[in-house]
Amino acid sequence: MKRIDAQDKLARKLGVLIVGLNGAVSTTFVAGVMAIRKGVAEPVGSLAQMGRIDNGRSNGDGEPIREFVPLASLDNLVFGGWDIRDENCYESAISAGVLNKEDLRRVQTELEQIKPMRGVFDRNYVKNLAGSWTKNTQDKSLIVNKLRQDIRDFKARNKLEDVVVIWLASTEVHKPVLRIHERLEDFEKAIEGNHADISPCMLYAYAAIAENTPFINGAPNLGPDIPALIDYSRRKGVPIAGKDMKTGQTLLKTAIAPMLKARMLGLRGWYSINILGNGDGCVLDDPQSFKAKQESKLSVLDGILKPGQHSALYGNFHHKVCIDYYPPSGDNKESWDNIDIFGWLGYPMQIKIDFLCRDSILAAPIVLDLALFMDLARRCGLSGVQEWLSFYFKSPMGSSEHDLFAQLRNLNDALRSMKTIISSAEEESGSRLMSNEMRL
Amino acid sequence: MKRIDAQDKLARKLGVLIVGLNGAVSTTFVAGVMAIRKGVAEPVGSLAQMGRIDNGRSNGDGEPIREFVPLASLDNLVFGGWDIRDENCYESAISAGVLNKEDLRRVQTELEQIKPMRGVFDRNYVKNLAGSWTKNTQDKSLIVNKLRQDIRDFKARNKLEDVVVIWLASTEVHKPVLRIHERLEDFEKAIEGNHADISPCMLYAYAAIAENTPFINGAPNLGPDIPALIDYSRRKGVPIAGKDMKTGQTLLKTAIAPMLKARMLGLRGWYSINILGNGDGCVLDDPQSFKAKQESKLSVLDGILKPGQHSALYGNFHHKVCIDYYPPSGDNKESWDNIDIFGWLGYPMQIKIDFLCRDSILAAPIVLDLALFMDLARRCGLSGVQEWLSFYFKSPMGSSEHDLFAQLRNLNDALRSMKTIISSAEEESGSRLMSNEMRL
Amino acid sequence: MKRIDAQDKLARKLGVLIVGLNGAVSTTFVAGVMAIRKGVAEPVGSLAQMGRIDNGRSNGDGEPIREFVPLASLDNLVFGGWDIRDENCYESAISAGVLNKEDLRRVQTELEQIKPMRGVFDRNYVKNLAGSWTKNTQDKSLIVNKLRQDIRDFKARNKLEDVVVIWLASTEVHKPVLRIHERLEDFEKAIEGNHADISPCMLYAYAAIAENTPFINGAPNLGPDIPALIDYSRRKGVPIAGKDMKTGQTLLKTAIAPMLKARMLGLRGWYSINILGNGDGCVLDDPQSFKAKQESKLSVLDGILKPGQHSALYGNFHHKVCIDYYPPSGDNKESWDNIDIFGWLGYPMQIKIDFLCRDSILAAPIVLDLALFMDLARRCGLSGVQEWLSFYFKSPMGSSEHDLFAQLRNLNDALRSMKTIISSAEEESGSRLMSNEMRL
Amino acid sequence: MKRIDAQDKLARKLGVLIVGLNGAVSTTFVAGVMAIRKGVAEPVGSLAQMGRIDNGRSNGDGEPIREFVPLASLDNLVFGGWDIRDENCYESAISAGVLNKEDLRRVQTELEQIKPMRGVFDRNYVKNLAGSWTKNTQDKSLIVNKLRQDIRDFKARNKLEDVVVIWLASTEVHKPVLRIHERLEDFEKAIEGNHADISPCMLYAYAAIAENTPFINGAPNLGPDIPALIDYSRRKGVPIAGKDMKTGQTLLKTAIAPMLKARMLGLRGWYSINILGNGDGCVLDDPQSFKAKQESKLSVLDGILKPGQHSALYGNFHHKVCIDYYPPSGDNKESWDNIDIFGWLGYPMQIKIDFLCRDSILAAPIVLDLALFMDLARRCGLSGVQEWLSFYFKSPMGSSEHDLFAQLRNLNDALRSMKTIISSAEEESGSRLMSNEMRL
Repeated sequence: MKRIDAQDKLARKLGVLIVGLNGAVSTTFVAGVMAIRKGVAEPVGSLAQMGRIDNGRSNGDGEPIREFVPLASLDNLVFGGWDIRDENCYESAISAGVLNKEDLRRVQTELEQIKPMRGVFDRNYVKNLAGSWTKNTQDKSLIVNKLRQDIRDFKARNKLEDVVVIWLASTEVHKPVLRIHERLEDFEKAIEGNHADISPCMLYAYAAIAENTPFINGAPNLGPDIPALIDYSRRKGVPIAGKDMKTGQTLLKTAIAPMLKARMLGLRGWYSINILGNGDGCVLDDPQSFKAKQESKLSVLDGILKPGQHSALYGNFHHKVCIDYYPPSGDNKESWDNIDIFGWLGYPMQIKIDFLCRDSILAAPIVLDLALFMDLARRCGLSGVQEWLSFYFKSPMGSSEHDLFAQLRNLNDALRSMKTIISSAEEESGSRLMSNEMRL
Repeated sequence: MKRIDAQDKLARKLGVLIVGLNGAVSTTFVAGVMAIRKGVAEPVGSLAQMGRIDNGRSNGDGEPIREFVPLASLDNLVFGGWDIRDENCYESAISAGVLNKEDLRRVQTELEQIKPMRGVFDRNYVKNLAGSWTKNTQDKSLIVNKLRQDIRDFKARNKLEDVVVIWLASTEVHKPVLRIHERLEDFEKAIEGNHADISPCMLYAYAAIAENTPFINGAPNLGPDIPALIDYSRRKGVPIAGKDMKTGQTLLKTAIAPMLKARMLGLRGWYSINILGNGDGCVLDDPQSFKAKQESKLSVLDGILKPGQHSALYGNFHHKVCIDYYPPSGDNKESWDNIDIFGWLGYPMQIKIDFLCRDSILAAPIVLDLALFMDLARRCGLSGVQEWLSFYFKSPMGSSEHDLFAQLRNLNDALRSMKTIISSAEEESGSRLMSNEMRL
Repeated sequence: MKRIDAQDKLARKLGVLIVGLNGAVSTTFVAGVMAIRKGVAEPVGSLAQMGRIDNGRSNGDGEPIREFVPLASLDNLVFGGWDIRDENCYESAISAGVLNKEDLRRVQTELEQIKPMRGVFDRNYVKNLAGSWTKNTQDKSLIVNKLRQDIRDFKARNKLEDVVVIWLASTEVHKPVLRIHERLEDFEKAIEGNHADISPCMLYAYAAIAENTPFINGAPNLGPDIPALIDYSRRKGVPIAGKDMKTGQTLLKTAIAPMLKARMLGLRGWYSINILGNGDGCVLDDPQSFKAKQESKLSVLDGILKPGQHSALYGNFHHKVCIDYYPPSGDNKESWDNIDIFGWLGYPMQIKIDFLCRDSILAAPIVLDLALFMDLARRCGLSGVQEWLSFYFKSPMGSSEHDLFAQLRNLNDALRSMKTIISSAEEESGSRLMSNEMRL
Repeated sequence: MKRIDAQDKLARKLGVLIVGLNGAVSTTFVAGVMAIRKGVAEPVGSLAQMGRIDNGRSNGDGEPIREFVPLASLDNLVFGGWDIRDENCYESAISAGVLNKEDLRRVQTELEQIKPMRGVFDRNYVKNLAGSWTKNTQDKSLIVNKLRQDIRDFKARNKLEDVVVIWLASTEVHKPVLRIHERLEDFEKAIEGNHADISPCMLYAYAAIAENTPFINGAPNLGPDIPALIDYSRRKGVPIAGKDMKTGQTLLKTAIAPMLKARMLGLRGWYSINILGNGDGCVLDDPQSFKAKQESKLSVLDGILKPGQHSALYGNFHHKVCIDYYPPSGDNKESWDNIDIFGWLGYPMQIKIDFLCRDSILAAPIVLDLALFMDLARRCGLSGVQEWLSFYFKSPMGSSEHDLFAQLRNLNDALRSMKTIISSAEEESGSRLMSNEMRL
């Protein structure tokens, strides 16, 4: 079952294929890795690069994670992907306005070489965007074939064994899970039949799995989070993960809510607004896209506070989440939370939090971690939904755990398990080379 | 070694002796317990009353804690204490202005019956207060004798076996640990010699331990946190705990800092101010009293972020904590934090938190938990510093763990250990009565 | 033309008829006047009661306004009105939850005696409410007649000469000005024809004017702000005023925007949210009602900043206003503003304002001022739209002046003019009694 | 008396001599003027450049101020000054970190040519700084002579008739007005006697006045605000102005307080903190320097609210102002205000304002306006304290008016008066050339 073999012993490259290659998060991620490679910046926010772990049960500060398990080296990442605009990564990064020009100029040459393949675009799933650089077909079978060919070409062109695919494109409109999403057979028939309820994200996910490539969904839309694709990923032995990366406001929420619960402080209401002015904000200005995001953001409190078991404290709170498109903010997303709590004898108190964050700056290291950890998981033979990565998601697939600190424990536990798997594999093969060389 | 015996099998009373009985926290605590007994209010904020625990290693939501371990029942608490003002608890509660009159009137009769014994007052330790209802001696040996007699009288008067003493009086001025605080023999000689560096809080702690009574220090001053008294508590088999209850701003800090660290987000600066208008604020307006508080508040970040192991992220941040006496706030303490963080490639972001809290509302349930848990610890035979109660303190004695969630895990582990102790004791005595009857 | 005559020389009573008598603002206003009469509270927020004026051109601090001009005394106010719920004012005040019970109990007897007449209710104009205590007809002519009779009956019952009518009912849905609202004749025909575009507020306004009674519109819906009714008020010699009382967020906005302009600081964006949990919030949860409010709130910035004359600074800013129904806030409306400004060389800065206000507490003294000043205006012979009261309104009828301080100057100027009118009238009648006796 | 003569008819140059030439405000001002001249930036925040005025009494939006009165053109400004560090303006601007490098590089050549003359440094007046580029004498008479010579040299070198001197150096420690500061004769004797209570700022002011040069004090220390120097400025016919430029928090305060008063809302408390991390913050970390600043900041509320005339509303409020040195903020000064107000019946409400401002960005255009307006005043023959410039100061010399909007009216009135003076002068000389050519 385990697939840790000879080729791991050499300094392997890892391909990272991004859907939405020219978006703000994508270019911030790629440009950042370039800058870090050059030694002019640090991978702040990346647990895989800067975190530590120990063998105990605590979230301790022992060995660096990247020495604890054999992760791909930043020097060996190869970037590619799809987009619906035909720009190179440097142009996109400039227009995203996240990183300043001075920083981008240092990696201009590298970024200019990265250009997207034609993307899949379906108007029914994103209202507020238009695409020109798209696959010139709407036939979903054909699209799947093209995407699979894209993945194979990318591997061949770059001489890669290992690739991960990550969806960083715009949020698709909210859709329910339907009959056709249940069984793999029906799903494949629906693709054949060009069914309207098969979204672009599902097509990418299907193609990736078919190519034995881990798939990560960074947005709140369903994508691989349907029974048919979960089943397919298990059958193919491919790990999948998602959905909706937990960056600003929700990250805070999943730290504050456990605090309230730790101290048994009650909650009457939690009012959250977000103002953001980048492309993401523009897409979410469409009510249907917003709905997908909102549902994702609303679910976390119940998961942590468990109203059923704590009805006196959490049985009856109002939770509101609003997102407003406000161009002056640009990528500097800002969230404001008003939290109405109550303490001893029910007396009311309030916490108000203004988070002046930067969406892409928070998201980029998550993309890095997900790419590295999913690749590790695949090499350790893990398949299906990776619940242990719920730490990174607002709506973690396969898990109702939203408490950030519990999620971190789960992540650490999983890393320890994988270390054990790797050690056994090494012992079998009579060698300790793997983990060492991986670090090159 | 274990002292869980026959008398536990009966519905025992627990005496709670409070130093500073007429302060805002004390009266809010006592009035609250009265109201909860009457069924007109809930013990919100009390883990002992509303929390849940399971036997696993998680912070799960299993059995109610008060069914998991045999805690004293709220109906069986008996209140008393010392103060330097001669008022009954109802008068003090009214002038504290924390609970509204309507709520206080419901428990007026009960509160009026609770009156303080004469307190120990030493001008050198609290500048901004004056006391009239004090022990009429400054001889420290004599004071110790009187305090011990007070405890014995209180027990006799109320037919009590079990008592805990808790310091909820004003913060004493900041003092270093000196030679005389090191060895018990020297400390006792210093009392004899009426040494200026023996503070009132130390006298109360010494007297309590001498009477085999657990002692809790809710303020940031040294009190029992000196080698001589720690040693004494171990020799006498008495548990002690402290110091400085973690209520508002620091509570938040110990949840936010673990979040930053979980995500490997860097910290450039953390600016914290507090405005408060109650008696506590007035006392802290004296720079020396403030210093004790400030040191207590400053220590938590390093304990969590571990700059030594994470120098790129936490090696160089500015941490400022200010407290201002601002009468319009009354007991409604407000804290404002500006947190300068950085993410991917070092890009800056900010979190600003305004916590409109109520000091006494947050502190009262902590007092309850500490009283109940310290009594449990004593019955389980634990002695010396109770590190597992660090969850409740800004400057936990005997522990450098400040991460709220790690502290909660430690607390839960300790409760599980005590349950094991109790179960063994019950098995030995061939009975399961204890835990059941404790709940009466 | 002037109508300052003999009866002014006696201590006259002033009737205040409120549409929406049982709402939060209304009961807070009425209960407050009762409490002030008893000497247990102060009319804070009322310029008419606490403000000062001098004869110069400044907003100086000379004579009290209530001595400067002959206003009706609080002791001589008589309250009545209409509502669609049949409750007395005490019951409504309790359920509004604005004033605390202790304060309300002091004026319970007086409040219980005030009960509403049956109100006009039209489902098409308020979606989120239901009414049981309504005029039992939908015929608009009949309704006008009943309202006129109500006013006459109220005068007769209380032996009143002077009455003002003020709309404090819920915001009606947003409607444009149509043909039928242009000419009085067409408007009256539309009433006859039971036209759907004649709203309840218009019917009240028409009835009041017909009865020579000043009419004030406290809500953002059109009401009297249509050519037909403005014309009618001039013909009948009746003053009218409106619309949408300027209380919390907009009040702040009309002070901050003049500051920016005074210093020639540029504006990129102004993002405003409101969270409120009272009945008003519930009504505004309906998008059409909200639209009326939103338009009212959006207009103020252009009026102050004059983008046309200052295009480099104000030619291109984003102004967003959101209102969210959030029950935990109750009547404690909270607004949060994020203001993106720029200074020297275009460098950006931000102002963030959190206003924890109380809607009814801010509105009640405005109601008082409007009632007293409109009565004064009528006695001074003023008719038609009273632009000088724009100080109190978000969307002042007949004025594009939104700068709070310019509005205050206009108000003071108008008071000085009225004083001149009054002095001339007194001289004519050879007496200075009027202003003196008014104060009784 | 008026000195508007022939030379005004030519395009005159205006010299601006800055004490503290290398500080953050100074370099931001100078670099900004350079950039505006090049057409790459706008003089946002400058009333003189972007404001409008009309001939009526309102703060209307008529003619541009710079066309209304004959101000020196930005193209004709010549910069110089003193500092205690020997750096050119480009180096200083880079290390100030206010303007970004890209913007500074555009004016690098111009900035590099501006270098300070040796400054006056007296350790007793600034604790937290050290100076190396100083006049090499501590003899105060000698210093005065050197400063006068500096001014004459600067004029000669640049062929200037008109110069203004502005103090933008660090805040000197707080000192009271003493006997020696009262009469000019005594003051001059004290200089002779090298008296310790003659501060550097006083020496600069004295030298400027002696050279018939207007002097502006941008800091809160006394400087020219002593009877002896006010008298001297009148005798010499030189205008002077000060003190402490009103930029961030106090600017807001003087807009919010008039709003409260306009609406007769009461005030219980106003708590203000500032965090700043630039050199100014470091100097103010010294308690004595801070005291000067604090007194300046505290005075404004009483001046606006007039507690004597409004005792029920403003007779008893707590006003606290704190400044904290917090390096992570850099020049991005941040202020947080908590304002406890009360309304109808005394019910409490709160306003909380977080102002993320930039000290130098707000101050630079004030420096420009003061230089241009003081030059205009001198040419119009005004001398002594210019109260009409109180609009720009926290502690305006010669005025107790703190209301921003009243100050703006006074400024506009003064400009109208000067226009009249100029028009008369032009009529006398039979020409309208002056104002036209000034604009060249």
